[in-house]
Order: sequence, then C-alpha cells, then structure tokens
Amino acid sequence: MKDKIKLGYIGVGRRGTWVLRECFSQMKDVEVIYISDLVPERMEQAKRTVIENSGVTPKLVADYHEILADPQVDGVIVMTGWSGRPQIAMEVMRAGKYVGIEVGCADNLQECYDLVKVSEETGVPCMMLENCCYGRRELLVMNMVKQGLFGEVVHCAGAYGHYLNDVELFKDIETETPPHYRLPLYIAKNRENYPTHEFGPISKLLGINRGNRIVSLSSFASKSRSLNQYAKDHLENPKWAEVEYAQGDIVTTVMTCANGETVVLTLDTTAPRPFYSRSYTVRGTKGMSFEDAKVIYLDGMEHKIRNNEEEFYEKYDHPLYVEYRQMESRGGHGGIDWLVCRAFVESVKNETQPPIDVYDAAAWLAIGPLSEASIQQGGAPQAFPDFTNGKWENREPVVRCKYCLDEICEDKNTPIY
Amino acid sequence: MKDKIKLGYIGVGRRGTWVLRECFSQMKDVEVIYISDLVPERMEQAKRTVIENSGVTPKLVADYHEILADPQVDGVIVMTGWSGRPQIAMEVMRAGKYVGIEVGCADNLQECYDLVKVSEETGVPCMMLENCCYGRRELLVMNMVKQGLFGEVVHCAGAYGHYLNDVELFKDIETETPPHYRLPLYIAKNRENYPTHEFGPISKLLGINRGNRIVSLSSFASKSRSLNQYAKDHLENPKWAEVEYAQGDIVTTVMTCANGETVVLTLDTTAPRPFYSRSYTVRGTKGMSFEDAKVIYLDGMEHKIRNNEEEFYEKYDHPLYVEYRQMESRGGHGGIDWLVCRAFVESVKNETQPPIDVYDAAAWLAIGPLSEASIQQGGAPQAFPDFTNGKWENREPVVRCKYCLDEICEDKNTPIY
Repeated sequence: MKDKIKLGYIGVGRRGTWVLRECFSQMKDVEVIYISDLVPERMEQAKRTVIENSGVTPKLVADYHEILADPQVDGVIVMTGWSGRPQIAMEVMRAGKYVGIEVGCADNLQECYDLVKVSEETGVPCMMLENCCYGRRELLVMNMVKQGLFGEVVHCAGAYGHYLNDVELFKDIETETPPHYRLPLYIAKNRENYPTHEFGPISKLLGINRGNRIVSLSSFASKSRSLNQYAKDHLENPKWAEVEYAQGDIVTTVMTCANGETVVLTLDTTAPRPFYSRSYTVRGTKGMSFEDAKVIYLDGMEHKIRNNEEEFYEKYDHPLYVEYRQMESRGGHGGIDWLVCRAFVESVKNETQPPIDVYDAAAWLAIGPLSEASIQQGGAPQAFPDFTNGKWENREPVVRCKYCLDEICEDKNTPIY
Repeated sequence: MKDKIKLGYIGVGRRGTWVLRECFSQMKDVEVIYISDLVPERMEQAKRTVIENSGVTPKLVADYHEILADPQVDGVIVMTGWSGRPQIAMEVMRAGKYVGIEVGCADNLQECYDLVKVSEETGVPCMMLENCCYGRRELLVMNMVKQGLFGEVVHCAGAYGHYLNDVELFKDIETETPPHYRLPLYIAKNRENYPTHEFGPISKLLGINRGNRIVSLSSFASKSRSLNQYAKDHLENPKWAEVEYAQGDIVTTVMTCANGETVVLTLDTTAPRPFYSRSYTVRGTKGMSFEDAKVIYLDGMEHKIRNNEEEFYEKYDHPLYVEYRQMESRGGHGGIDWLVCRAFVESVKNETQPPIDVYDAAAWLAIGPLSEASIQQGGAPQAFPDFTNGKWENREPVVRCKYCLDEICEDKNTPIY
C-alpha cells in the first residue's frame, strides 16, 4: 500500500477547479504534481490553489501527454468537457496509470467498448467519479435495502431535474465566448445526455454488472421548445431564439434488467422547474423511497405520510456517511465529492479495483448513444451491450473498504481522510 | 331541451352504488327508473337509496335488456365490472340511448373500434365518466394553460398511484367470495390496466382527437413480486402467496403525440406506497405543475419552491370549480363525481355530444390492450390507432357549456345542478 500518491489533473474548468480545490488538493495523502488545460489562465489559477492548499507546486503542461510520460504519476483525473474523455482515459490506462473520469456520456458506443478493451488489456482500472453514488439519500436507501427493509426491489426511477438555462447553458452568453460546452451538444444531439447522477446509484443498488445487467433501453424525447422560449424571453441577442435545437425538452428513458427490474430516467434541464432533483425512487415489495415527496415508506406504516426522511437518517444513515458527518464538513455538496474522490484515492493507494469500475463506466456512458439511437428509431428498444462479456453472471459484489458500493462494508480500517 | 331525463342504471357494486347515491339520485332533473345487477340484494339496497333521495321508485331488472327496450329511458349508466362494459355500451347505443360508462380499459382493441363504429352508425353518443377530468388540480392547470401561462406544453406525466392490496385486491378475501373483480385480472394479464384517471385530463389538455392524436405507445412492466409478498405477510390463506400473478408491480407507459409531446403513465398499485397520487405533471415552456411536490412554477418565480398550489387556486381556480365551491359540497371526492355526472346529464338534456366523447373513450380504453402487446414484445412501440379516421386534424375544440373540457367556457346559463 502506498502512503501517498501523485496525481496529474487534466481539465480545470468550473467543475475541474471545484473538485481540485475542495477535494484532491486538500488530501494529506495526495500530491497534485501536474495540471493540464487548454486555457493558461485557468492553469495558473489552479496552480495557486494547489500551492495554497497543499504546499505542492504542480507543473503546468499544455500537452497532457507529458503527464502520461512521467513514471512518478500514480493516477490521472480527467475533468475535460463532455466529448473526448474516454479517449483520454484510454491513453492514461495505456500509460499504466489509474484514471478517474468526470461523469457524462459517450459520443458513441465504440468508445465504451474501447474503454473496456483497453482496461482489460492493460489491467489498469478506470473509475467514473460519480459523486451521487455517495449522496446521503442514496447511501441511506442502499443501507436499508441491503438490510432487507425494502424487500425485493422491483423498480427504480431517477431524473436529472436541473433547470440549466440560466445556470449553465446560456450563462454569460451575452458577454463570454465560447458558450458553455453543453450548448453545442444541445444544438446537435437529441438524447439522454446526462444519465449518471441518477443512474449511477441505481446501477449499484441493482447490482448491474454483478449478478444483474441492463437488457434493453428505450428512449423518447418531447419536442424541443423551451430553449427557444427562454432565449426569446431572457436574452438580448435574437440569434439564440432562432437556433434550431435538436435536444428535446424532456427525455424519458426506460431500461429493463436481467433480473426483471425496470428503471426510468428523465432528463429535464431546459423547461422551467422550481428545484433541483434527482427524483431518486426505489420501489421494493416492502418499502419505497421517493425523493420528490421526501418520503420513505415501509409496508405497515400509517398512510398519507410525506417528508419523513429525517427519522430514517437518524436510524439508518449509511456507516460511511455517519463517519463523514463526524468530520468537519469537507468537499462541498454534502460530502459527495469528497467521498467519491476518497474512493478513487484509496483504490490507487491499495492498487485495487475502484468501487465504480470500467464495466460500470462503459454501461453508464453507453446510455447516451443508445438513447439517441432509440429516439431516432421512434422509441425502438435497443439491445444493451454486455460489456462484461458474460462475466456479470458470476461477478461477486465487492466488499473491500468502506467506500464500496456493492455491499455495506464493516471495514473499520480505511481512513475516511 | 329536456327539463328532466330518465336513466337506467346497470351495475350497483361499490362504485356504482356510490355514484348512484351521491350523484344521480340526488339530481332534481334526473329520475333513475331502472336498476339492474346480478346480485338481487344490491339492487334492493340501491332501490331504497333512490327512493330515499328522490322519491322515484326504480324498477329492478335482472336482465338489463329490459331497460334498453323501454322508450321512456333517455340514457343508461354502465357501472359493471371491468370486462364487458364496451359490449353493453354498444347495445345501449343501438337502442338509441345515451350511454355513460365507468372508467377502465378494454379487453381488446376490437372493442374500441366497435364502440366508435356503433356510435357513428347510430349517431348516439358514448361518454366515459372520467371523474378526474373534473379534479380541481386538473381544472386549475387547464385554466392556466388555456390562458397561456404555461407557454407551449411539451410533456405530461401521470400515475395511478394507489396501493390497492388491502383496500381492493385482497379486501375481505378471507371471508368473502368471489374476490374483488380486479384480482383475476391481476392474475391473468400484465398491462397498464387503469390509465384513464391520469390520462383523461392529459388527453383533454393536449387536444387528443381535436388537433392532436397519440401516435405510438410503448409499455414496460417490472417483475411481479409485491402481491406474493403482501399475501405472505398479511393473509392467512397460503394460497394467495403461491399464486402466479401476471401483473407486473410497476408498469411504465410512454406515448408520443402528433404535435410532439411525450406522455408518461405509471401504473403503481401493488407495491407499498404511502399516499394516493395521480402524479399529475404538466410541463410547458413557461411553467409546470407537479402534483407530488404540490407545486406550480412559472418561469421567473424564485427557485426552491414547493407546496405553493394554494395561492394559485385562489387566483386561477377554473370557473366551473369556483361555481361548484359555492354550492354545498356534493357528490364526494371533492366534486369530481358530481361534475362528471352533471356533464353527462347536460348532454342528454341538450341532446349534444358529451365533453368526453366516443373517440376519447376509444383512445383511452385502447391503452390497456396496446400496453399488453408492447410488454409482450419487449417494449416495442405500438402504432396507436386513429379512431377518428383522420378527423382529428380538423375537429374543433368544443365550447358549449361549462362542463366542456376543450376550452374554458364563459357559459353562464348551464346550471351546475
């Protein structure tokens, strides 16, 4: 086991900078020794942050291949824009270094196959840094499900319910160029473009790639109207109201699983909505969780209950979250960034497979291109690739350290920071 | 216009009796002169209710054909069990009488085609008594949408979220035979079996059959586990835990519309859930309604709002509901039964098409068999029949009396009772 690891960091836009500042640069067992970005000013700013937080002075490189060539580097974090991440991840693995990639979806299915192939050929792990797998609610429900309180899970649903028009898509569009990297994708593509925040935790809960797998996917997009309406009502430049956006306002995706569960995902980012929600929903034969009514219900409880989650947190908070709460709050977003980054760091230190592995990454990334194909084909079900090539049937749940997401781990040794 | 109408009433089980007692027998312009049911005791009880409420003594007939043969009868209400209602409705229309049918779904598509054919051939209207079309929330949202406050509607969703195990499916199963009429259907069929409570109002809002139509339908069922678990945990007779139920616990149905909207329906009746909900959701380019968070949101309002419906009721309650509130509360269920029954009675009195017509009934009833076919075919999209045979493109919204559901009517003359 390594006491300390050295990381390279590719991509210090808004999200990359946040995670670097709040998480990796604050960890006593991590040294960020490289930063790479296309924008020199961003690199300079990120460098100052790393020095301030850790005392380490990272080297700034315009070409990230320099990071891959340095044998000192144990792992690389890829926080670039949506497109191209899998390609960089493959290069990192070929260089023999652990890779952690920010959430998103693939441009095409081939990237997903390639990601698995490269990881299998090199034996190097790839982890998607899906922070919502470590959400307090998601961990609570996993804890309760693993204890049998929900009975047999039959159905899950989730959403990326986040009204992005002003906070991302058109943010500062009158004054800044280029626009947010998501906007060109909303113009070019119609798909479930951001499935992992809600599907990551569901996938782990259902044991996808470990005893279960997704069998088929169907997607349906509403017409695209809300971006034009927003631009018309809120932006000065008339151009944005006239653009033809490919992305439907609401995209509904339904997946079926080998073990008989159904999963419904909703992409909901452009039509007005009042609050952020992952609409995390788990339905079992004995209990349910439903984020939008903030309710947990177990069979036999009195009816008409809402807003009762707090009592369950008190009783069934996931052990990992209990420990996190005892720390000073770190990493922002209620701990999800800190915990997912720690999971990556522990895997690198222990040279083990991360709790979210390359098969998870491939399956989650594949939702984008598969949903695009289904929408184009009028909702025709797409056969979901088995990236494990049959291994899913016998792959055991991982119980290794407290960051594991397959089972509740009793590990008392893994430090939380 | 008729001042008073005479009705025959077929089916006085629990629901039939409720509507007879709370609505039709209480109306000053209605005489219920026939009651028919397979169970003599039920007829006797219903007869006493009608006499008590209206002073009219209905004739009890085991064979409902007697009702159809009586030229005095203006209209017939069909409140029999799920199966066979369309067949009876066709007989009623062939006898030249208005028919009102309780909600449900068809056994097969042919019934839907036949219903339309018979109504077109005879010129006699058929109305589905979908009370939820007159729900206060649904009317409010329709009112706001028609005023343009939601912008262009792009997506709707709804559910029949009603945990039926103890309240219907297994109610009194240890002591009473036969079991509830729904139970054999849960054993025999796997489908969206009760779509109209949520889809009726959505269909009217989207102008289905009047400028819009459903183009395709896809359905997905989770595994069936919750009825067995419930029976195991709650029933004495071990038989019910061992039955193989065909009905999946959660059924998700997605429809696409000619005008580009998507509609998602969820059947959710056997897995534990804490409260009844139709999860009525309407998404527009400028506003949304979401029942499960009791929120209405218009673009520009502050974020993080929930539970704010009350202020909208005060401001935008549908004129029909405003008038209903001024009456003594009648008919139960917040007025929905009273209002839908009044809509039927007004149509019979005025000899006009009812606000929910035979094309609506056919489309809504068709969801059951189409969803069954889609589930059997692994979620393959089913082409949705155009029961109007092309007339949907030019059928105008109905603006006739205040019970109309196509547009907000300013009619001050139609009495509410």
